[in-house]
Amino acid sequence: MTDAETDNGNGEFALIDRLLKPLAAKTPAALGLTDDAAVLSPTPGRDLVLAKDAMVAGVHFLEDDAPEDVARKLLRVNLSDLAAMGANPVGYLLATFWPEKLPRDWIEGFAAGLQKDQDEFGVGLLGGDTVRTPGPLSLSLTAVGEVTAGQALRRNGAAEGDLIVVSGTIGNGALGLLALKGALVGLDEDLQKKLIDRYHLPQPRLALGKLLTEKATACIDISDGPLADIGHICDESRLGAEIEWERIPLSYAARQALAQNARLRDVVLTGGDDYELAFTLPPAMEEALEQLATESGLALTIIGKMTAGNDVRVFHEDGTELTLDTRGWQHF
Amino acid sequence: MTDAETDNGNGEFALIDRLLKPLAAKTPAALGLTDDAAVLSPTPGRDLVLAKDAMVAGVHFLEDDAPEDVARKLLRVNLSDLAAMGANPVGYLLATFWPEKLPRDWIEGFAAGLQKDQDEFGVGLLGGDTVRTPGPLSLSLTAVGEVTAGQALRRNGAAEGDLIVVSGTIGNGALGLLALKGALVGLDEDLQKKLIDRYHLPQPRLALGKLLTEKATACIDISDGPLADIGHICDESRLGAEIEWERIPLSYAARQALAQNARLRDVVLTGGDDYELAFTLPPAMEEALEQLATESGLALTIIGKMTAGNDVRVFHEDGTELTLDTRGWQHF
Repeated sequence: MTDAETDNGNGEFALIDRLLKPLAAKTPAALGLTDDAAVLSPTPGRDLVLAKDAMVAGVHFLEDDAPEDVARKLLRVNLSDLAAMGANPVGYLLATFWPEKLPRDWIEGFAAGLQKDQDEFGVGLLGGDTVRTPGPLSLSLTAVGEVTAGQALRRNGAAEGDLIVVSGTIGNGALGLLALKGALVGLDEDLQKKLIDRYHLPQPRLALGKLLTEKATACIDISDGPLADIGHICDESRLGAEIEWERIPLSYAARQALAQNARLRDVVLTGGDDYELAFTLPPAMEEALEQLATESGLALTIIGKMTAGNDVRVFHEDGTELTLDTRGWQHF
Repeated sequence: MTDAETDNGNGEFALIDRLLKPLAAKTPAALGLTDDAAVLSPTPGRDLVLAKDAMVAGVHFLEDDAPEDVARKLLRVNLSDLAAMGANPVGYLLATFWPEKLPRDWIEGFAAGLQKDQDEFGVGLLGGDTVRTPGPLSLSLTAVGEVTAGQALRRNGAAEGDLIVVSGTIGNGALGLLALKGALVGLDEDLQKKLIDRYHLPQPRLALGKLLTEKATACIDISDGPLADIGHICDESRLGAEIEWERIPLSYAARQALAQNARLRDVVLTGGDDYELAFTLPPAMEEALEQLATESGLALTIIGKMTAGNDVRVFHEDGTELTLDTRGWQHF
């Protein structure tokens, strides 16, 4: 990396640099990681979109998660932020805080995971920093994207009566974390694995985000759970929202989990880690949804509408209001 | 921040967000920190310059350093990277990893330090992330700057015979750290304090960096010590360098420290934390130096020249080569 510390003789920092350097090979803006900074020539007429998310071992991922998955999730949660703005990813900067004696194959796996997702999403490493920490492995990634000038999706444009739409299925990430922690033991192991995979490897909805520019009135990625994140759209648009529980799209695995324990409903609503997009559309755009779904290759489901007020309320299809057992919106 | 985690009931994250939010108030690209990412409209004809440095309590700063100073140093070391590229700073993204029970006044001091330097350097907070860590306080900052397209200063352009020039005085940062650790007790306390101040508050040489575009053939900021950093210019330009020890500009405090202990010479050469610029100039540009010094308000001193080969060698003025006692280029 551009400013890696010198080794204390054990060669580990040199190893990290050697493993990370190829990640910048196809990104001219990285300057081969030889200089103090990356130099990016923005596309004329495009805005730059910059997102920065941090992760800590033991807090945001588990100590024994596969290093490939940790690397890919770190990149993907940031790409998901770009997707929520309708941006096309360009590259990323990476700060890594390494504890002593991290095994060589962990570092190799981490770099391999980044390489895999770079290829998948067409991004490259631009630069960053490599430092030592006496604490747990910590990571900070800054993702850089581009969007046509003035067309970035925001949270603040929803209007009363707008439809609330979500992509894919909801709740898999949070249920996957529960499965990882052994809290879904009654569930078929294949289904548990499906949920765990969704927790480990979110799918940033970049193609959908790009399709939504000039269409959606507001957009967000669901990282904190649909209630909290639709709540953010409400806050910024100064409105409320009504959601119908029975409309929330669930995967087969999630439906089986809920069939065994109905209280997992609150996990679906407040658990987070979905990285699907939630967005609002004027009611007149409803017929455009099918084409958006076809073009993005994703299920798109209307789950409610924007209302006056400032609360997110959840109702059953019979009109009774649903009250949550948890305080809600808590990270695990 | 844009993606702060929810509180575990103690309100500390809400406090952090409340303290950081005003830092984005004057930066339209930050979108008030309400969205998933910042949206920056680059100036037509300008390249974006992106630098990312990380710091950890107990590694890169001392646990009892003033929070204002920690914040300002974090910002300044990144601005120094922009200076080394000849870029004008625009803003920054900030990821903070907070340990439990950090005192409220520490967080307030940290935000106040950022505000002070935002005002001084004309930058604003663009976005970032706030997370919890069971480890030490850790920080990662991504600085964003702009430079006329194609004019970013690089490390790879030096030619054989080019003059090697440094700004300001060298060694103060590393000697300041020694003073902080009580290793310069024989030195007058006022002088110790001067050195410590230079360690805590580096001065990013932004005005000089901008003046050097289209003039310097290579440039770097001195963060790892002049030998290591001029070594980076040598590596990237595939050349060697000869430096004359007696030409290296020293502050009065550094000269007094060396008068008491000549072995501190190696600290000056290899200690780092100066954040002055080292750059190379074609010999024909020598007469331009005086005007560059006047315009930047900085002393600019020729300390050597680029040579064939691939080593950085240090000589006395009588031509004898100087050998270092330390292995050199080690961070403290």
